[in-house]
Amino acid sequence: MDPSDAQTACFEAGIKFGSLYHQFAGTPVSPDSADSLARAIEEAIENQPHCEAVTVEILTEELERALADGPADYTELTGRFLDVEILVEYEGHTVRTRMEMEDGYPLMRLVDVDG
Amino acid sequence: MDPSDAQTACFEAGIKFGSLYHQFAGTPVSPDSADSLARAIEEAIENQPHCEAVTVEILTEELERALADGPADYTELTGRFLDVEILVEYEGHTVRTRMEMEDGYPLMRLVDVDG
Amino acid sequence: MDPSDAQTACFEAGIKFGSLYHQFAGTPVSPDSADSLARAIEEAIENQPHCEAVTVEILTEELERALADGPADYTELTGRFLDVEILVEYEGHTVRTRMEMEDGYPLMRLVDVDG
Amino acid sequence: MDPSDAQTACFEAGIKFGSLYHQFAGTPVSPDSADSLARAIEEAIENQPHCEAVTVEILTEELERALADGPADYTELTGRFLDVEILVEYEGHTVRTRMEMEDGYPLMRLVDVDG
Repeated sequence: MDPSDAQTACFEAGIKFGSLYHQFAGTPVSPDSADSLARAIEEAIENQPHCEAVTVEILTEELERALADGPADYTELTGRFLDVEILVEYEGHTVRTRMEMEDGYPLMRLVDVDG
Repeated sequence: MDPSDAQTACFEAGIKFGSLYHQFAGTPVSPDSADSLARAIEEAIENQPHCEAVTVEILTEELERALADGPADYTELTGRFLDVEILVEYEGHTVRTRMEMEDGYPLMRLVDVDG
Repeated sequence: MDPSDAQTACFEAGIKFGSLYHQFAGTPVSPDSADSLARAIEEAIENQPHCEAVTVEILTEELERALADGPADYTELTGRFLDVEILVEYEGHTVRTRMEMEDGYPLMRLVDVDG
Repeated sequence: MDPSDAQTACFEAGIKFGSLYHQFAGTPVSPDSADSLARAIEEAIENQPHCEAVTVEILTEELERALADGPADYTELTGRFLDVEILVEYEGHTVRTRMEMEDGYPLMRLVDVDG
C-alpha cells in the first residue's frame, strides 16, 4: 500500500533521530564543551528536510558522574548523556519524537502524530 | 494523537536509514573494499530492533568513474555510491524503504506499508 | 626502536586529525549552521589529550557555491569545506598541523615540530 | 622545524587510528555481526595512504559479557570491544601502533618506529 502523508511524516522523524545519533555518538565531550556540541547538533539536524525543531540537552550532571569514576576529564557522547526532542512537519502532519533512556538503552520513540 | 502501529513501523524504518547513512558515510572505500563494507553495513543495521532485512549495494562502476577523475585509488562513501533497501516489521506491519539518488541527493523514501 | 617524545607528539597530532575528520564528515551543514558546527568541532577535539588548540573554519563561500548547483539548502560536511589547524603539545614538543585541499582531496599535513 | 620522514610516518599512523575509531565507534554490533564488521574496518582503513596492514579483532567474549547485563542482543562498538594493530610505512620508515584498554579508556599508542 502506498504510504500516507502521516506515515511519511513518521518515517522522516525516524530519519532525523537515526542521523542525529549516529552522526554525533562518539564525539569527545566534557561538561565544558557540552553546550557548544548541543547547539551544533540542533542546528545541523534542523537543516534536514521537514525538520522544524530539534532540542538537545547534554546531561552534564550525568557526564560529571561518569567522569568521577575515571582518570579522564572527557568521555564519548552516547545516549546516556542525551535528552533529545525532534519536531517534524510534513504535508500538514506534525510528529513529535523523543529519546529517553530505558533499561540503559537510548530508546527513540514517537510521542504523538497530529494533523 | 497516539501513534498507530503502522506509524511506529514507519518511524522505526526511518531510524534505520538515518543510522545507516550517518554511521557509514565518510568511510574510505575502493572497488576492492566495497564488498566487505556492504556486508558489514547490512549485518550491523540488521542488529537494530524490528529490522528484518537490509540490502546494500555499493555501486562499483560509479566508484570507478569517480576515481578515474582524480589521483587517489579510494574515496569516501556517500549516497552517490549506495543503493539500499530496508525491510522493517513492527507488530504485523511491514514497511519497505529504499534510498535512491534524486537530483544528486540521496533520497530515502517509503516504498510501501502493509499489514 | 622505541618512539621518541617528538614522534609520539606527531602520532598524537595525527590521531586528532583523523578523529576530527571521521567524527564530523557527513554532518548536515548550511551557511547558517556553519558557525555553531565549527565551534563545536574545536571544543570537542580540544578535549583530547595533549591537544592545545584547534581552529576550524568552515568555508561558507565554498558551501554557497556547492549549494548554488543543486536544489537543497544544505549539504554534507566534507574536506572541501574545511580549513583546520591543530596544535599538539607532548612532553615539551609542539606539533603544528594543517588540513588543506590538494588535487581535490583533503590532505592532512605536519607543518612543523619543535622542542 | 620541518618534520622528518620518521615523524611524518608517526603522524600518518595517528591519522589511521583516529579515523578508524571515530568512523566506526557507535556501529551496532553483536557477536554474530562482529566478524563482518572487523573485516570491513580492516579493508576500509587499509585504503588510506601509507597504510600497509590493519588487524582488527572484535572481542566477542567481552561483547557477550556486556550483553548478558541487559535486555538487548546488540550494543554499540566502542574501544572496550576492540583490539587493533596498524602498520604504516612512509619513505622507508615502518611504524607499528596498537590500541589497548588502560583504566577503562582505549589508549592508542606507538609500539615502535623503524628505518
